[in-house]
Amino acid sequence: MSILIRGGLVVSATGSASADVLVEGERVAALAAPGTPAADSWAALADTVLDATGKYVIPGGVDVHTHMQLPFGGTFASDTFETGTIAAAWGGTTTIVDFAVQSKGASLLAGIESWHAKAAGNCAVDYGFHAILSDVNEAALKEMDAAVAAGVTSFKMFMAYPGVFYSTDGEILLAMQKAKANGAVIMMHAENGIAIDQLVAQALAQGHTDPVYHGLTRPPQLEGEATSRAIALAEVTGAPLYVVHLTASQALDAVAEARDGGQNVFAETCPQYLYLALEDLAKPGFEGAKYVASPPLRPREHAAALWKGLRTNDLAVVSTDHCPFCFKDQKELGRGDFSKIPNGMPGVEHRMDLIYQGVVAGKISRQRWVELCSTTPARMFGLYGRKGVIAPGADADIVVYDPDAQQTISAATHHMNVDYSAYEGMEITGRVETVLSRGALVVRDGAFHGRPGHGRFVPRGLSQYLV
Amino acid sequence: MSILIRGGLVVSATGSASADVLVEGERVAALAAPGTPAADSWAALADTVLDATGKYVIPGGVDVHTHMQLPFGGTFASDTFETGTIAAAWGGTTTIVDFAVQSKGASLLAGIESWHAKAAGNCAVDYGFHAILSDVNEAALKEMDAAVAAGVTSFKMFMAYPGVFYSTDGEILLAMQKAKANGAVIMMHAENGIAIDQLVAQALAQGHTDPVYHGLTRPPQLEGEATSRAIALAEVTGAPLYVVHLTASQALDAVAEARDGGQNVFAETCPQYLYLALEDLAKPGFEGAKYVASPPLRPREHAAALWKGLRTNDLAVVSTDHCPFCFKDQKELGRGDFSKIPNGMPGVEHRMDLIYQGVVAGKISRQRWVELCSTTPARMFGLYGRKGVIAPGADADIVVYDPDAQQTISAATHHMNVDYSAYEGMEITGRVETVLSRGALVVRDGAFHGRPGHGRFVPRGLSQYLV
Amino acid sequence: MSILIRGGLVVSATGSASADVLVEGERVAALAAPGTPAADSWAALADTVLDATGKYVIPGGVDVHTHMQLPFGGTFASDTFETGTIAAAWGGTTTIVDFAVQSKGASLLAGIESWHAKAAGNCAVDYGFHAILSDVNEAALKEMDAAVAAGVTSFKMFMAYPGVFYSTDGEILLAMQKAKANGAVIMMHAENGIAIDQLVAQALAQGHTDPVYHGLTRPPQLEGEATSRAIALAEVTGAPLYVVHLTASQALDAVAEARDGGQNVFAETCPQYLYLALEDLAKPGFEGAKYVASPPLRPREHAAALWKGLRTNDLAVVSTDHCPFCFKDQKELGRGDFSKIPNGMPGVEHRMDLIYQGVVAGKISRQRWVELCSTTPARMFGLYGRKGVIAPGADADIVVYDPDAQQTISAATHHMNVDYSAYEGMEITGRVETVLSRGALVVRDGAFHGRPGHGRFVPRGLSQYLV
Amino acid sequence: MSILIRGGLVVSATGSASADVLVEGERVAALAAPGTPAADSWAALADTVLDATGKYVIPGGVDVHTHMQLPFGGTFASDTFETGTIAAAWGGTTTIVDFAVQSKGASLLAGIESWHAKAAGNCAVDYGFHAILSDVNEAALKEMDAAVAAGVTSFKMFMAYPGVFYSTDGEILLAMQKAKANGAVIMMHAENGIAIDQLVAQALAQGHTDPVYHGLTRPPQLEGEATSRAIALAEVTGAPLYVVHLTASQALDAVAEARDGGQNVFAETCPQYLYLALEDLAKPGFEGAKYVASPPLRPREHAAALWKGLRTNDLAVVSTDHCPFCFKDQKELGRGDFSKIPNGMPGVEHRMDLIYQGVVAGKISRQRWVELCSTTPARMFGLYGRKGVIAPGADADIVVYDPDAQQTISAATHHMNVDYSAYEGMEITGRVETVLSRGALVVRDGAFHGRPGHGRFVPRGLSQYLV
Repeated sequence: MSILIRGGLVVSATGSASADVLVEGERVAALAAPGTPAADSWAALADTVLDATGKYVIPGGVDVHTHMQLPFGGTFASDTFETGTIAAAWGGTTTIVDFAVQSKGASLLAGIESWHAKAAGNCAVDYGFHAILSDVNEAALKEMDAAVAAGVTSFKMFMAYPGVFYSTDGEILLAMQKAKANGAVIMMHAENGIAIDQLVAQALAQGHTDPVYHGLTRPPQLEGEATSRAIALAEVTGAPLYVVHLTASQALDAVAEARDGGQNVFAETCPQYLYLALEDLAKPGFEGAKYVASPPLRPREHAAALWKGLRTNDLAVVSTDHCPFCFKDQKELGRGDFSKIPNGMPGVEHRMDLIYQGVVAGKISRQRWVELCSTTPARMFGLYGRKGVIAPGADADIVVYDPDAQQTISAATHHMNVDYSAYEGMEITGRVETVLSRGALVVRDGAFHGRPGHGRFVPRGLSQYLV
Repeated sequence: MSILIRGGLVVSATGSASADVLVEGERVAALAAPGTPAADSWAALADTVLDATGKYVIPGGVDVHTHMQLPFGGTFASDTFETGTIAAAWGGTTTIVDFAVQSKGASLLAGIESWHAKAAGNCAVDYGFHAILSDVNEAALKEMDAAVAAGVTSFKMFMAYPGVFYSTDGEILLAMQKAKANGAVIMMHAENGIAIDQLVAQALAQGHTDPVYHGLTRPPQLEGEATSRAIALAEVTGAPLYVVHLTASQALDAVAEARDGGQNVFAETCPQYLYLALEDLAKPGFEGAKYVASPPLRPREHAAALWKGLRTNDLAVVSTDHCPFCFKDQKELGRGDFSKIPNGMPGVEHRMDLIYQGVVAGKISRQRWVELCSTTPARMFGLYGRKGVIAPGADADIVVYDPDAQQTISAATHHMNVDYSAYEGMEITGRVETVLSRGALVVRDGAFHGRPGHGRFVPRGLSQYLV
Repeated sequence: MSILIRGGLVVSATGSASADVLVEGERVAALAAPGTPAADSWAALADTVLDATGKYVIPGGVDVHTHMQLPFGGTFASDTFETGTIAAAWGGTTTIVDFAVQSKGASLLAGIESWHAKAAGNCAVDYGFHAILSDVNEAALKEMDAAVAAGVTSFKMFMAYPGVFYSTDGEILLAMQKAKANGAVIMMHAENGIAIDQLVAQALAQGHTDPVYHGLTRPPQLEGEATSRAIALAEVTGAPLYVVHLTASQALDAVAEARDGGQNVFAETCPQYLYLALEDLAKPGFEGAKYVASPPLRPREHAAALWKGLRTNDLAVVSTDHCPFCFKDQKELGRGDFSKIPNGMPGVEHRMDLIYQGVVAGKISRQRWVELCSTTPARMFGLYGRKGVIAPGADADIVVYDPDAQQTISAATHHMNVDYSAYEGMEITGRVETVLSRGALVVRDGAFHGRPGHGRFVPRGLSQYLV
Repeated sequence: MSILIRGGLVVSATGSASADVLVEGERVAALAAPGTPAADSWAALADTVLDATGKYVIPGGVDVHTHMQLPFGGTFASDTFETGTIAAAWGGTTTIVDFAVQSKGASLLAGIESWHAKAAGNCAVDYGFHAILSDVNEAALKEMDAAVAAGVTSFKMFMAYPGVFYSTDGEILLAMQKAKANGAVIMMHAENGIAIDQLVAQALAQGHTDPVYHGLTRPPQLEGEATSRAIALAEVTGAPLYVVHLTASQALDAVAEARDGGQNVFAETCPQYLYLALEDLAKPGFEGAKYVASPPLRPREHAAALWKGLRTNDLAVVSTDHCPFCFKDQKELGRGDFSKIPNGMPGVEHRMDLIYQGVVAGKISRQRWVELCSTTPARMFGLYGRKGVIAPGADADIVVYDPDAQQTISAATHHMNVDYSAYEGMEITGRVETVLSRGALVVRDGAFHGRPGHGRFVPRGLSQYLV
């Protein structure tokens, strides 16, 4: 079974080349300059020929931050691994890395096993796992080695959500020491949840129950603070640090300073922080609940700082933190008490498109788009080679992207299992046309041709950014 | 005429892949995964098959800072375009970008023409030109547009060397305004030459004539200052700035701060600033003269900062500033007066090897090595696509590099036309094995098979880093 | 009862003037230029005339950080209010501000009362109290207002010592909100005690029990981190912050950055961090225990940074953190387990002399000496006007200081109730000659003439640095 | 002849005290607490008794930046030493330090002599001189020593005004080396005049001739740049640097960073930069010419940064840069060509009042007001002891200031010899009531009682801030 993608512009993280791409089975077999004998010989060879003239041919997106069917606040994220990965495929994302949760009092590996059970046989595209360390103890620390050996090479910790995922600075220190030793990356949700919880309690005590108070009780300084603290702990231990969903200019400054000093500190942001703002949380009625996620949307000026960070590489990755809850029945759990609104927003489907708008607007180059959405996340989390690049031997995770198509984002047309879109009505340029996942044509001609179970678990190596 | 390079590890700026590379004529025709039908079909096709098993296959080096046969201080840099590009080829560098000098009172385009005349028919590998703007006036500013149209898309200015290459801040401002308008890059030799000249005069007046005073009269703060000033002028005009041969931690800090702020400021350093130090200038006798270049070698701690900068990308390129003068008869012009020692050091042959030592030492990854020495310089100066990458359609400038070979650097064995080596006796790991320049095997089996005149002028596009 | 101090050089925080000082009762009545009729008329008037020719006449020292008879680690600081204030007087310090401890589970005001009970009738010089908030709850927060009204206008919190004095970030936030409202200053012991406790446990588990491990398990980054965190919480709440016993360059950088931004952040250091270093903790045998205090002594280079901070005013105050424990029986509690060594060092007697060595060495001016040791601490903590200045109406707390005298510091001669000196054998220039406390001659002619009970509680106003 | 000032609140740089002040002849004889025998005895003694009840008694203002009758642009600043110092006295400034200009090609000492000739016998209050170094050569450098010996201990240089006052970086370096050797301070007009002149020429060439282009052609980055450059040269030479009339946040950041690093860098700003802005330069008609000074007024946000700098002490002094030109006939020289508008604004009369508005607004404390306007300028420029403080032996330069009076600034009522006020109609709180200059009552009861010739030249010592 072979597929030839002809006539497209292959865009990589460093630039573009007109090239035909030959896929054999699950892998990229070869690339050739159009019109060369090598290229010409393939037309006959290929079972399927896709015409990519005028299109970009890019490595499939790698979304390293999703929460499919996550249990949170008494409910579950509304996308299952099945619905979520189908939506991902539609959006040109061919690999997700989801978070397997260690329950308090339970084993880390058991958490990973349990996530394997949820995902296995259900995913439309390939997937990997990070592990959420929520109970740091001697056993769990030891299990980190086994997790790495099993291809789960990054561990997320929380400085927020006391009583749920929260780890103390001492626990973070222990986990970082272990990461330093076994080569894993510590991922950090960096908000000072201890201080925030006081502000939340005060707001509620004063009758401030609307969704906007979710934002107002989590000031950006407390994200900046926690980010600085995580960096300091990483410095003491020598561990690499990856700051997830960075939103505040204060946090960006802290990351930039650490990176200037040569420390292995990396950060991602998410589309919602680039396009939406605190004012969305303040929409009338309970509408703001749609935008409740943590860290919260920020005043508009932070977005400008984040776009700058995407250019300076102080933000190296764009992921989605995809964690959808329906407005009806789920977000509504927090009517009258913003602290009970499930935290999270849908997004896995539109990341490639939304960041491509930065290319359209001249904020970033198309190669930077590929780098932010595919190549760097793959390199960061030990997937590169198989994922994040169109090169001989790589998994044939390939997107044919039409740079000129027009579309309008809407819940009416999206494929995520959630009853609203945070970008409802937004008109954008560019569209995913065709998607290959490990050589299978999963999206083509406006239809989904994949199947749950096609997607396989990808054990990951160590981060390729640590020399 | 086709060449197949089999079994090697193709290293790019983002990672590595086992791939066979098929060269047809002057271009890369295709890459294929070894063992695939596509790859297998090539063995028969290829006129020549090179076995690269256990070797790295990398895009040829791009050295964007050379001064072949430069007239300086009453003499000429000792490498001609012929000897210099042959030495480059030996060292795995398949493109140089040399500096065409506008003479005071003369036309900018005439300067470029004159350099074309020197290079044409003499080069063993491809070459491009930057132009040195040494007389900013209305005509010269207008000529910048024509230069860009003719593929000379970057202009170097000097804040040092009053009376020779020096431009005032007002002149720099004018040139930057033009660069902002036509898309060119301003390259800057950033040392405060006006202040330095006072220190030089004072030293000589005090009888301090030894080579070490070359270093002592050019303190790092005055490089930091000039770098900051160039950045401020770039900010006022909106022009992109590329700081050449950055050596001082103060300058690096200034660049890092500007880059953190999102300004289009880039910088290179050179191997001599990474491996040598002020103490070399202080070698007994007149030995220090071998190490006289500007900016000067710095106290050892600066080198650590530079290595950090290579990792943080605040230093994006390693070039050589190759500008050799023989010790005998040339360097000796400055016996008894360090200010008369011709400024410059040989280096074009050993850049790839010397920076590879950073890989050997674990300071940078091999992909970063390729990025610093080939991919980024190509992207920075509008060569990428043809140069800086092994991809279908790219010029077949390819190096097969043996990562395990041992060699000793010595004037006795190098190919540069200069009677000493700044790294005499240095034992290194790694060696260039085979070199293709636009499909021609120019170095193979320890012999040079190229010829002067094979190398062609490459008109350059605009920098590919400016979105 | 009046005293005339004639012929001295009155040194203030801004400069010096030759002036005679007339004390009437407890207050400074007047200053006059020598030889003026006004001055001349006083000789007859005064009951006592002190000749200060060739001497400095300075406002009595104000030590805002002492811990007399503090219960700690199962023992008590060895100086009582009586012995400690007598030692203070000997050393030219005429006001101390000690820390009244709120016990866990107990009332804040009760803690203050208890300290009043210890001090009342026992002090040789005047004293005030800060309160240590160690149990933040609604009642305690309310009591802060009453404390301010009663002249206790500053509250110390700890980010170290979990289980003892430690407050969470949430508790700190609440206390800062209260301070913002009532004008008080929050003082912070800024070390990340949660992370430190893990390092301590690890060290002990590895058999690292010597005193030097006290230093090694409290790395300077964790002081820098906590300082940054305290600053962020102060920014969120708008409260003024005073960082006690700052020792690490990282913490100094954080303070400097906050101050550059206009935030009301202040810091002190102590003589031990200026003169002693980590290597003292590593002295052979158990000798290092003498130097155990928290934060710990630092590698030598931090002291240079601290001296710089004293010049830049990023360090505004020098206090002692006087908290003596005898080597015998007290420090020895930690033989075999450095974590059991009582934390603290003696110092109240030598602050004026030790900082004067900075004047002798040309590091600071004599006016800066007075500013750091007397004027600024008085202004910072609402004592200025009565304390910290020699001006009409001020309390006659005056020191006649001989700038040329030579002395050797030794436990054999000091007056503190502790069996060792951290500066044993150190030869210094300058010596306290005569001391007046509220008009009483307490030290004169090498003898102590004061009495316990002379010293009175001084209720303090709000900080005079907050506009 | 003696004067007793009774019942006032004596405000110093560190705080306030109720005190009676006895002046005998030209000096402060004594200060006493009201109601003490000492104080009571003085009522009989004093020839004159001033009731200062409810008033502030402050050291006379020290304005270290004035340009009386300066020749500039073919005309002369409109205030003579006589009119200017009378206006100063009215405004509570009892010492000015004016700038003696070395003419190109002439001797530095001759310049000073020439200024002595202009001032001698004409000043109503005391005065000193800085020297403007506009022709750096061996003779002039040697003369700097003589100038210091003659009480001219600071030298101003210009990075702006090429062809007039401009010095090259090499010349600045030489002068700084001399200052380092003889203890003088280098004052710097920090704007990159070389680059600015290009922008000016371009604006004029484009027909942009209105006053606002004065501001637009001198962007704040070019003040920031020059400030950084001056700091770098000061670092290389070890000289102390005092940046005059700092206006731009970029420059403030540079100063703050240098000061954080412990370098002896100081800066002043002027009232016009705190209260006026670029928009004033854009007033309709030719009105904007009234606000033409260099550096120019800045966009409003810079003023907020400057107020912050006054609090952080990165701005240590407020001076006026008093350099008035009448609107009629003088400013009008630049109609149709903004570059011909004489640079300068009137201000010597209102500094104390304008900065007091910062006290009224709660931005700074009253002691900081005294520090900025009197004590620090005196300390900075070697006047302290005689000037800048009310202490025994100090010159009796004293202002009785009514903190509650209301007044309106207007050209109709001011005493400067200039036909407009930059603050016309501004209503302010606070007013100078009585002024003593060296014991003489020069302003009292709304009338001027002084005389030209009362003011004497004050030879200055070295800066008292350099330890």
